[in-house]
Amino acid sequence: MPFSKSEFKSRNANVCARMAEQNIDLLLVSDPANIYWLTGAGDWSFYVPQFALVMADNEEPMWIGRAMDTPGARLTAWMAAENVHPYPENYIQRAGIHASDYIGEFIASLGFKTKRIGYESDSYYFSPKSLGHLQRALPNAAFVDCDLLVNWARAVKSEAELGYMRQAAAIVKTAMRAAYNGIAPGVRQCDVVADIYKAQIAPNAEFGGDLTSLCPIILAGEMASTAHPIWTDAPFTNGQTVAIELGGSRRRYTSALARTMHLGKKPPQNLTDTAKAVEEGLEAVLAIAKAGVTGAEMHAAWQTVLSRDGLKKESRIGYAMGIGFPPDWGEHTISLRAGENTAIEADTTIHIMLGMWMEGWGMEMSETVRIMPDGVECLTNFPRGLHLKHEKRNRQDAQPQQ
Amino acid sequence: MPFSKSEFKSRNANVCARMAEQNIDLLLVSDPANIYWLTGAGDWSFYVPQFALVMADNEEPMWIGRAMDTPGARLTAWMAAENVHPYPENYIQRAGIHASDYIGEFIASLGFKTKRIGYESDSYYFSPKSLGHLQRALPNAAFVDCDLLVNWARAVKSEAELGYMRQAAAIVKTAMRAAYNGIAPGVRQCDVVADIYKAQIAPNAEFGGDLTSLCPIILAGEMASTAHPIWTDAPFTNGQTVAIELGGSRRRYTSALARTMHLGKKPPQNLTDTAKAVEEGLEAVLAIAKAGVTGAEMHAAWQTVLSRDGLKKESRIGYAMGIGFPPDWGEHTISLRAGENTAIEADTTIHIMLGMWMEGWGMEMSETVRIMPDGVECLTNFPRGLHLKHEKRNRQDAQPQQ
Repeated sequence: MPFSKSEFKSRNANVCARMAEQNIDLLLVSDPANIYWLTGAGDWSFYVPQFALVMADNEEPMWIGRAMDTPGARLTAWMAAENVHPYPENYIQRAGIHASDYIGEFIASLGFKTKRIGYESDSYYFSPKSLGHLQRALPNAAFVDCDLLVNWARAVKSEAELGYMRQAAAIVKTAMRAAYNGIAPGVRQCDVVADIYKAQIAPNAEFGGDLTSLCPIILAGEMASTAHPIWTDAPFTNGQTVAIELGGSRRRYTSALARTMHLGKKPPQNLTDTAKAVEEGLEAVLAIAKAGVTGAEMHAAWQTVLSRDGLKKESRIGYAMGIGFPPDWGEHTISLRAGENTAIEADTTIHIMLGMWMEGWGMEMSETVRIMPDGVECLTNFPRGLHLKHEKRNRQDAQPQQ
Repeated sequence: MPFSKSEFKSRNANVCARMAEQNIDLLLVSDPANIYWLTGAGDWSFYVPQFALVMADNEEPMWIGRAMDTPGARLTAWMAAENVHPYPENYIQRAGIHASDYIGEFIASLGFKTKRIGYESDSYYFSPKSLGHLQRALPNAAFVDCDLLVNWARAVKSEAELGYMRQAAAIVKTAMRAAYNGIAPGVRQCDVVADIYKAQIAPNAEFGGDLTSLCPIILAGEMASTAHPIWTDAPFTNGQTVAIELGGSRRRYTSALARTMHLGKKPPQNLTDTAKAVEEGLEAVLAIAKAGVTGAEMHAAWQTVLSRDGLKKESRIGYAMGIGFPPDWGEHTISLRAGENTAIEADTTIHIMLGMWMEGWGMEMSETVRIMPDGVECLTNFPRGLHLKHEKRNRQDAQPQQ
């Protein structure tokens, strides 16, 4: 188990306390990151309906999912075996019926027919049809939107969680080094991405890595003007600016890192100017970041620096992150941008992500940080500056210093 | 572009014809596989709301998504630039508003305020909240459930699509060989999975691979009793039975392959008996598979063989597959099981997946096939039998014949 039983119990109690504020009797948790955080069940079972059920008076949540995935949930979840339930195989992708018919009846049998049932209205892997079938099976229950309730409960990380985030940061450093080593004129994007995956999954002899919830992002050539392209077979070429956004994932906890390379001796002036401003902006954000500061204040520190150079970034400059299941490692709670006035707590983990996607080119720089009472801990330690690489034969010199 | 403009146009026309049967004026397409099939836009932009809009009288669909991902959609979609639309960054994960507020108003501005709007009720990445905000923005439109309409339109593959499926099959063969080579007593699961990813993404000098929508599945030890576990750092051990389910993905088209190894000289009798029955069952399915046959008939051919040995499989024995985005490569349309009485058409592609997850152990065998007028084409050609490996020093002998 990735965490102690007592840690899982305190998570369940944390969620129950938040449910009590809205008089919720049962919370239907559908986001796989939330399910994993509550139960420890984290197999690839989220492509069909599955839920964690948190009940106001229970110390343990329940898990319910597809029959063929239930043995895995029993082996990985912390709860007693009787709290892990299958629904039958004949509910899978069959016209006219839905797994949520069965799940709704199961919830009714637990005594929640006329109770207040919370659900996640905007999570991954919970569809309008699934909600509709639950409501049909529980016509006298009150369904209450509790979107992000569990996500907010996940914001502050335990020591054990921070330990996995630091291991994830070690993984992403190894993966970024693989990118720096591999990217060179004439090398295909797919060959570099293959090496990045290898580094992410088998980073060292001490521990392995998980699949990152967002694939490696390589911005090269014209695709550098967009944020999340998929790699191609095209070779890198001389004169290209290449931005790289990667994750490392350990026990599903993710740290991310973005950096930028230029393939050539002399990078264009607009690139070096922007990179310099972005690095100063990042330093300004890191200088004020600590417990109690808001997302709006961190964004203002950034904008003050960027405005000196006439630069603006329309998108937010960071977000809370932690557990990652495809397709996202963000927690969908805290954002760093104007108007975000929630004070950020100590031991929250944030990806400060400075992506500048310009007309026809782009650059990125990021850090994953832990907010501390009096400052921040950068989880990775990797040179921030624009990385220049000018000859293919210099590949072995390109390794950044440790 | 992965396909010609004329192929994309005929896909759009195919969908419009199906919409006409239900008098749908505009179809909101949310499943990323459907969006990719209709538009060619396939970046990692599906973790936030995005849609393809198919309009009854238009030759081209539209795409709408997050501003920072719009340049990528413009570069990869086949449509004119004016049919690719951004919604502003300030709609991303902000309390109180939703991207579908903007998208709903945009749809209203196109003239669909009082029209019949189809939507996918049970696709990935379309939430109850997103639907609710669209309905609020379009209070006088009629919302009609058109779930799987596009999925069914995707079932029959073009020559170009089959070409990618065959390349994907070549990739999965390379990846399975990496698994066979790597899996041995004392080797960590993560090290083998790292090599599998490398083989999937950079399979050969001719073409690269994409991320498969389902991660490599390794069933070893006690986790062999479940269908979709995530790999660990644990080393394989002598005497283990290891089942492996992998995909290969080329331009997002996926072929899959499952096989089983045993680490030891003498596999247990129940394993060899089951493997023999499963292989005979597979042959029986392949023998009757051709255009016009139903999923129920293919399942009956399987069950006739399995019943001789007193074996039963609760879950379906296959499903239609093609484009894969996380978390699934199935098309959610055709299933091979009792009660499925739709005649399967020529050039449909099916993953015949025979997973036997028993008490404490498991085995798998699969083929991805193309249904032809008079039989089937197996896309991969890889030895089916139980693969035995008994000494670590014999690793180089373990490579299956080409």
